[in-house]
Amino acid sequence: MAVYTDISEDDLKWFLTEYDAGTLKSYKGIAEGVENTNFLLHTSKDPLILTLYEKRVEKNDLPFFLGLMQHLAARGLSCPLPLPRNDGALLGHLSDRPAALITFLEGMWLRKPEARHCREVGRALARMHIAGEGFALTRPNALSVHGWQPLWDKSEARADEVEKGLQAEIRTELDFLSAHWPKDLPSGVIHADLFPDNVFFLGDELSGLIDFYFACNDLLAYDVSICLNAWCFEKDGAYNITKGMAMLEGYRSVRSLSDAELAALPILARGSALRFFLTRLYDWLTTPEGAMVTKKDPLEYLRKLRFHRQITSAAEYGLSL
Amino acid sequence: MAVYTDISEDDLKWFLTEYDAGTLKSYKGIAEGVENTNFLLHTSKDPLILTLYEKRVEKNDLPFFLGLMQHLAARGLSCPLPLPRNDGALLGHLSDRPAALITFLEGMWLRKPEARHCREVGRALARMHIAGEGFALTRPNALSVHGWQPLWDKSEARADEVEKGLQAEIRTELDFLSAHWPKDLPSGVIHADLFPDNVFFLGDELSGLIDFYFACNDLLAYDVSICLNAWCFEKDGAYNITKGMAMLEGYRSVRSLSDAELAALPILARGSALRFFLTRLYDWLTTPEGAMVTKKDPLEYLRKLRFHRQITSAAEYGLSL
Repeated sequence: MAVYTDISEDDLKWFLTEYDAGTLKSYKGIAEGVENTNFLLHTSKDPLILTLYEKRVEKNDLPFFLGLMQHLAARGLSCPLPLPRNDGALLGHLSDRPAALITFLEGMWLRKPEARHCREVGRALARMHIAGEGFALTRPNALSVHGWQPLWDKSEARADEVEKGLQAEIRTELDFLSAHWPKDLPSGVIHADLFPDNVFFLGDELSGLIDFYFACNDLLAYDVSICLNAWCFEKDGAYNITKGMAMLEGYRSVRSLSDAELAALPILARGSALRFFLTRLYDWLTTPEGAMVTKKDPLEYLRKLRFHRQITSAAEYGLSL
Repeated sequence: MAVYTDISEDDLKWFLTEYDAGTLKSYKGIAEGVENTNFLLHTSKDPLILTLYEKRVEKNDLPFFLGLMQHLAARGLSCPLPLPRNDGALLGHLSDRPAALITFLEGMWLRKPEARHCREVGRALARMHIAGEGFALTRPNALSVHGWQPLWDKSEARADEVEKGLQAEIRTELDFLSAHWPKDLPSGVIHADLFPDNVFFLGDELSGLIDFYFACNDLLAYDVSICLNAWCFEKDGAYNITKGMAMLEGYRSVRSLSDAELAALPILARGSALRFFLTRLYDWLTTPEGAMVTKKDPLEYLRKLRFHRQITSAAEYGLSL
């Protein structure tokens, strides 16, 4: 749930004079996005999302995120499109914060996705990877292999509070991953956070991808491994091979995965499981009790990490090689 | 800010089959209403509000609230209209809670209302009082003169923590009000909570009233006194006589106020200031620090109460008698 920065109708009307957005009819703070404040605007034209960027977002990254959405939308990917101001800028200023006006995407995220949805997500991810080619700006992935050690340093001392033996297990895992992390795989712009709440469907049809605020440059197959972790496990922790197969086949129907990418999938999946484990662990240990935020269980990702550790080849994810 | 009960798209689609609401295109939890969870729905027809009634709302009161909106809308008042289900019922069930589907009202509430808006609010309040005539159900006002003592009992012991001398002052006030509270004034259905965030405007035109979840039967002039308190004081605590005049003239241009109602206005305003003081005081003393809820300062209403105590006639509110 987002913390809302309220805005007055006068400030908002003044802000809107910089855009060709029609006449304002209503605006409502919506419970979407943990990092930013979002309002849904009804106007005499199409509905819009107004995003106020709160402190947790690095201001210098905003041109990358907004430019990327514009780049992807121009190449036919269904994603929110930032409206340019009359002076051409994508970023404005409202209530003491950087702010952007973005097209509203109809659709709903699936609380209970099925295999056929995983196939669509695989296809959309591959389309995004291709559409991202040629984007001029770059942004390193602070949450990839080099970022894990500093993140772990902040939680290591208290890790055994969450599960006994965790300290030793994660230290070994970090050593292994940094020694064996693949280097020469195809890279490009990745979404890096394509969880179910960032994919909209209308019926069974995928209507768009949202929330590019973790997007960065990294190995494309790493993005695939994030989706395997985010979409293909059941609530009880079991890997659903039907979903995994659908996800991978969907992806490969749009962009092929090289032998090297396929061979690297298990280690990439260990890495992405560790990445979400580490951020969740940190939040788990530092979020005060009683704060109105749903703490996500880090152990969910520890179990996924352990699953991937026993995988010896991508075929075990359901791939027909 | 509301606490959200999430709903799955499957449950929602199932719920919507009971209504003639069009095809669902999106639903977003919105930051509106403290007592309930609200979603804004886009459909192939008009936008709708879906309200899930949380525990704080007395289930037995829901037919009064929903029936009242239907009654008022049928008499031409611009307010949300509950959609009937195919079986004619106004109330459904979703995510283990009573739920209703209600028309979405375009418009924005004013963070900085001016005198001309107060005039419109006065007119709308009078129209509501007239439109409420003939409504079959009744609901006593638990937050009127008889409800204050039990409310005070819960805070009295700690009142002097908020301001020294408060215990004695409020005890005297309660005695005075219960001895002099008017009885024979015109009564009917009142809104009882017509604060700025419950009145929508499009430009300078009032587009509708919302949030009837405190509505009840009581003295009509008591509702006027609530609006004087809610709309006609400045942030620095000063009464704005221009706004007061506009509010009262707006009201009287639609429904006249009798001499007895006018004479009672100062004591009614003391009562309504006390009512909001008492609920805020209770919340102030019982809401834990760090809870993500904006605590409203009870002293704002103590200052209003003291202001009304020195008023000797309604003329001092700006009324040309």
